[in-house]
Amino acid sequence: MKSILSVALPQQAYNVVIAPQVRTQVGAWLSDRQQPLLKPGQKVLLVSNPVIFKHYGEQAIASLTQAGFQVSHCILPAGERYKTLKSVQKLYDAALANRLERGSAMVALGGGVIGDMTGFAAATWLRGIAVVQMPTSLLAMVDASIGGKTGVNHPQGKNLIGAFHQPRLVLIDPQVLKTLPAREFRAGMAEVIKYGVIWDVDLFEQLEAAERLDQLRHISADLLQSILTRSCQAKAEVVAEDEKEGGLRAILNYGHTLGHAVESLTGYRSVNHGEAVAIGMVAAGQIAAEMGWWTEAECDRQLALIQKTGLPTHIPAELSINDILETLKTDKKVKDGQVRFVLPTRIGEAKVTNQVEASVIRQVSEQLQAP
Amino acid sequence: MKSILSVALPQQAYNVVIAPQVRTQVGAWLSDRQQPLLKPGQKVLLVSNPVIFKHYGEQAIASLTQAGFQVSHCILPAGERYKTLKSVQKLYDAALANRLERGSAMVALGGGVIGDMTGFAAATWLRGIAVVQMPTSLLAMVDASIGGKTGVNHPQGKNLIGAFHQPRLVLIDPQVLKTLPAREFRAGMAEVIKYGVIWDVDLFEQLEAAERLDQLRHISADLLQSILTRSCQAKAEVVAEDEKEGGLRAILNYGHTLGHAVESLTGYRSVNHGEAVAIGMVAAGQIAAEMGWWTEAECDRQLALIQKTGLPTHIPAELSINDILETLKTDKKVKDGQVRFVLPTRIGEAKVTNQVEASVIRQVSEQLQAP
Repeated sequence: MKSILSVALPQQAYNVVIAPQVRTQVGAWLSDRQQPLLKPGQKVLLVSNPVIFKHYGEQAIASLTQAGFQVSHCILPAGERYKTLKSVQKLYDAALANRLERGSAMVALGGGVIGDMTGFAAATWLRGIAVVQMPTSLLAMVDASIGGKTGVNHPQGKNLIGAFHQPRLVLIDPQVLKTLPAREFRAGMAEVIKYGVIWDVDLFEQLEAAERLDQLRHISADLLQSILTRSCQAKAEVVAEDEKEGGLRAILNYGHTLGHAVESLTGYRSVNHGEAVAIGMVAAGQIAAEMGWWTEAECDRQLALIQKTGLPTHIPAELSINDILETLKTDKKVKDGQVRFVLPTRIGEAKVTNQVEASVIRQVSEQLQAP
Repeated sequence: MKSILSVALPQQAYNVVIAPQVRTQVGAWLSDRQQPLLKPGQKVLLVSNPVIFKHYGEQAIASLTQAGFQVSHCILPAGERYKTLKSVQKLYDAALANRLERGSAMVALGGGVIGDMTGFAAATWLRGIAVVQMPTSLLAMVDASIGGKTGVNHPQGKNLIGAFHQPRLVLIDPQVLKTLPAREFRAGMAEVIKYGVIWDVDLFEQLEAAERLDQLRHISADLLQSILTRSCQAKAEVVAEDEKEGGLRAILNYGHTLGHAVESLTGYRSVNHGEAVAIGMVAAGQIAAEMGWWTEAECDRQLALIQKTGLPTHIPAELSINDILETLKTDKKVKDGQVRFVLPTRIGEAKVTNQVEASVIRQVSEQLQAP
């Protein structure tokens, strides 16, 4: 099984390769094509976290070294709370120590945190060098690794600091998901469900047809390949139409408006990104039903799918609804002071609106709070 | 007197306005055109340093406020040694405190340090918001404010961290040069001479024809307008042909290869950027003569012009030539391990080469060292 998708951007197209074992072939992918993505002998800085590096670091380094690149590596601590400028500074130090030049590359081997920080460091080192994304979490595979959004958190808000910087190549190896903790797997499933709701009704129905979705071991290799391919295809199509989020791309924020607020107010700890998005999708779905954008039945189908995946569907009891509403106002998606929501119009389609009244947001949030 | 130049980039063209009093008209320039550069009522963060803000801050704020914008300001310490990620973090904090949105803008009112940092903060806040450059030093007017290079220094190297981010508008008021210290004025003249050597022989001859160039008060308003316009035109033409420094734009680094090494090794203190570039141009000129790229006579004309401006022409005695040669290897312009130099082929034309032998660099550097 192998899928090769193209993210067809006007300035530079790049491939997303989804295939078992591709983690051991990064060197060949960068060098062995008719048009090599990186010049022979170039310097490559592999960036990872301790756990991922232990599992897959040596294989990647061996592959890159065998292809003739000069490989160094930099290990950053795992976890969203380390997605800071301070960690990026360590990457700058490593780039300097290893004398990365304009023709050099960084390779991000890890989850979304590693991918976002490595992408940002690559975007801003010497005003931009190449980056290759090798996502190892489901969340990073279907979301963060494609589309060129990079960045770090500000102490007071997620992803406030960043840059658009498209990767040169994305390599996705489904086999690495075997070492992903179950909770992280479910977190990624939130984004998969998102693509079903906003873009791909067939994907949604495939997920509905599956017996279990709460753990990887219940999902066949075929279904997994399909989930990854359809999700990445959805992301690639949206990004190709709207690279810089002028319009369409904003629909990818489905579930993220309220999700970011929940994530931020829990200090990026007790609720992870995917869980927050799941809660945000439930909220957006109910707002959409409240406003007559889609039916109660569609809203229930989404809720059932999220529940089947084992993701949370309630706002944590300890959060204040007032704080959530206040936090929404500092969200990046605020435009002219109006909070923007993505709402589904039917399964497989969604639109952006800034017409959701504060009273509706409050009412739905209160209903959704865990008792 | 008013010059309006266009920097004709494919994705987005922008104007460079050179006119007395334009510093008091920024609000009108952003709002009063048929196609407003900024939406009415938007938030604007004015960034400056204490001295410049004292001179011109209120005028700019008044102009922006009168045009209906919500203006806040952030004052950063002056000086190259504050061009750090730490200062940029203060801008992020100010952006958050004032809730800058994607449609908001930052306005850089100051020299190159303020312009570079504000540009970088704007490039990376919410993955990119608008920036307006209002340069107040000659150096920033003719160089840093145009072309979208933004960034900060790494403790071990200048401008290693940065991004390309074109301004929405550049406003240059020659009158503000009256408050510029004489040494800073001369520093800017180094870049003006550079444009004469690499691009515009008429500019070079205008400078040769001037009786004195060492202080602003000896330069007529007409000549000053011409110097600014021709220099900005040269920069705009080069940038429009090669935004991301794939080829032609590299000639703007004339004098900067050795210049950066001198600047870096003196800790960005005893020798300023323009002075370092002047020394670098003398070195590049002699290397070019040594290699037969241009004549000794042309080399002497350049030297005479640099001397007339009162700029230094020797490498400081305390620097080790070995350190300089070592520092050259960490320069951003290193490609495949080869140091790249820009060398003049005649007055008004220059080319990039990586064919300068280390022995020639050493010999010229030793000749140029102050006794």
